[in-house]
Amino acid sequence: MEVDEVVHMPRLSRVALCGGTHGNELSGVYLVRELLKMKKANQNEKEGESVSVLKVLSNPRAIKQCCRYIETDLNRCFMQATLNEPGPEVAPYEIIRSQELNHMLGPKGCPEAVDLVCDLHNTTANMGLCLIAYSDCDWICLHILRYLQKQMPDIPVRYIHLDLSPNEAYSLDSVGKHGFAMEIGPQPHGVVRSDIYTAMKAGVQHMLDWVHSFNSGHLFEGGWVEVYTLVKNVDYPRSCETHSITAAVHPELQDQDFCLLHPGDPLFQAFSGETLRYKGHEPLYPFFINECAYYEKGIALSLARKRSVRIPPIQVQTTGEHQEKEWAVKSGEE
Amino acid sequence: MEVDEVVHMPRLSRVALCGGTHGNELSGVYLVRELLKMKKANQNEKEGESVSVLKVLSNPRAIKQCCRYIETDLNRCFMQATLNEPGPEVAPYEIIRSQELNHMLGPKGCPEAVDLVCDLHNTTANMGLCLIAYSDCDWICLHILRYLQKQMPDIPVRYIHLDLSPNEAYSLDSVGKHGFAMEIGPQPHGVVRSDIYTAMKAGVQHMLDWVHSFNSGHLFEGGWVEVYTLVKNVDYPRSCETHSITAAVHPELQDQDFCLLHPGDPLFQAFSGETLRYKGHEPLYPFFINECAYYEKGIALSLARKRSVRIPPIQVQTTGEHQEKEWAVKSGEE
Repeated sequence: MEVDEVVHMPRLSRVALCGGTHGNELSGVYLVRELLKMKKANQNEKEGESVSVLKVLSNPRAIKQCCRYIETDLNRCFMQATLNEPGPEVAPYEIIRSQELNHMLGPKGCPEAVDLVCDLHNTTANMGLCLIAYSDCDWICLHILRYLQKQMPDIPVRYIHLDLSPNEAYSLDSVGKHGFAMEIGPQPHGVVRSDIYTAMKAGVQHMLDWVHSFNSGHLFEGGWVEVYTLVKNVDYPRSCETHSITAAVHPELQDQDFCLLHPGDPLFQAFSGETLRYKGHEPLYPFFINECAYYEKGIALSLARKRSVRIPPIQVQTTGEHQEKEWAVKSGEE
Repeated sequence: MEVDEVVHMPRLSRVALCGGTHGNELSGVYLVRELLKMKKANQNEKEGESVSVLKVLSNPRAIKQCCRYIETDLNRCFMQATLNEPGPEVAPYEIIRSQELNHMLGPKGCPEAVDLVCDLHNTTANMGLCLIAYSDCDWICLHILRYLQKQMPDIPVRYIHLDLSPNEAYSLDSVGKHGFAMEIGPQPHGVVRSDIYTAMKAGVQHMLDWVHSFNSGHLFEGGWVEVYTLVKNVDYPRSCETHSITAAVHPELQDQDFCLLHPGDPLFQAFSGETLRYKGHEPLYPFFINECAYYEKGIALSLARKRSVRIPPIQVQTTGEHQEKEWAVKSGEE
């Protein structure tokens, strides 16, 4: 077996845990509230050892109204150009709020930005737990993925890669040096299911455990992980006149997120009854199948290619030369 | 076996089929739209034989915005007192709309009212198909229940009885001489699932088939049906300070609608982890467990008593004496 060289990466001193970026995705809202309560009760001693965790309720007005957003989707406001737009006084609430959050957790792309943003989301799609990020070579995110997969055998844990540049990256998690959305479903928006809440709570705890372990000097072995890269989105069939949808996701496809979709497979069932089939030429992996919030975005499902990515062993970078030698010795001893 | 006397009831000439009373419960919205399209295409010949079906999109503004309601819950506006309130010019949109619908389908309690209102709804709860009505001795509704149970063996079909007087009855279906809500779930609000849409389409078709058959003189045998009568609603545990919920429905209770809940059974799981148990003294049947729209109404679940109701054989009433004799002869011949 080939032995990869250990990649040393800076410690993750500041983590932001965000909930309610979409105000009706309730697992994150109630989890962040619960953690804020625990913080008040001074029970978060463990994380204090090596990492400071900033808990944020991202869109307080949308949370209060239990809706996705007030004026525009907050989680589409973090492109570099939008963040730099002047004159937020007359801007939609979420544009102003995105700049506040960028000030609090970023600025995006700057050395002052938090080390890791974990933004909590729910989906109505049957996606299990997904980390969604903009890089397929962010070893921190991919090692966390592998750790969650190992620690949470009862729920599928997958990694979705959106192939956009940092400037184009539109979501809150792009403000951190590393970041991902933690997306869990299925759960109706506006509802909190205990099973989904518990899975998110466990996912967050394992993620923080990993960060703590990483900061403490643990060497994480390299290996392979699977990455799903978004290829394209597919809209519902719609009426030319009214733009209203004329079909629902086919019952054979509904809830089959991440099951390979082949050319000719059923895709939609028209309200009149007939079956519409997938006309693509390449088998692809569907996800976000029938996500509630994407009707207005013209997305019935997304399609991805899957590939294996080799991740190197990683270990925290030490700051001084003395410490670096210490690690080298320790490494050699193991 | 005891032979019950046949109850003769007036024919059901006018049926109203309503969707979108809640604008984000999409099965009914798309089904009514589809049937309106078919009507335009002149394909509804069968129903034309004995019954006129008025298809109604109840809350067009809420449908357009894909939300439950604009200003107030339309399906709580049909109490007799509310319908008679003067001065709708300054009233909330749904109050005005309820009076329009009462004018169109009622007036409630009057001879001009339509014979049967079937109002289409979805729930996020795992309730299968339920007919919800205000009477436990409306033989039309209960015979339709039994017919749907027979015709739809793949989905549980149940009858929920809300024990309120006609004046207090608050929902759109109370405007007809007979009426019920047809409630199907689980489906997230704002989403249309093909399986749920297809079940609703089948339920409506069977209901109209039954009406047609009834109007044509078919004698429906008597028998027994089960009726769930609402006893009480149970709210989520809430914070005294913020009124925010502090627990979710317990994972062992989630999705277990109509499974008997015993004293001491798990009811809620607090966000901090602990289990809260059912402290009632009587085993009852839970339903509307974790329904999205009821968070704001302070209802985590409803509890019902189940009992068996004997329904008599029924047949359509003939209008003239001559015809009545004809039926009597026919009856005797069989």
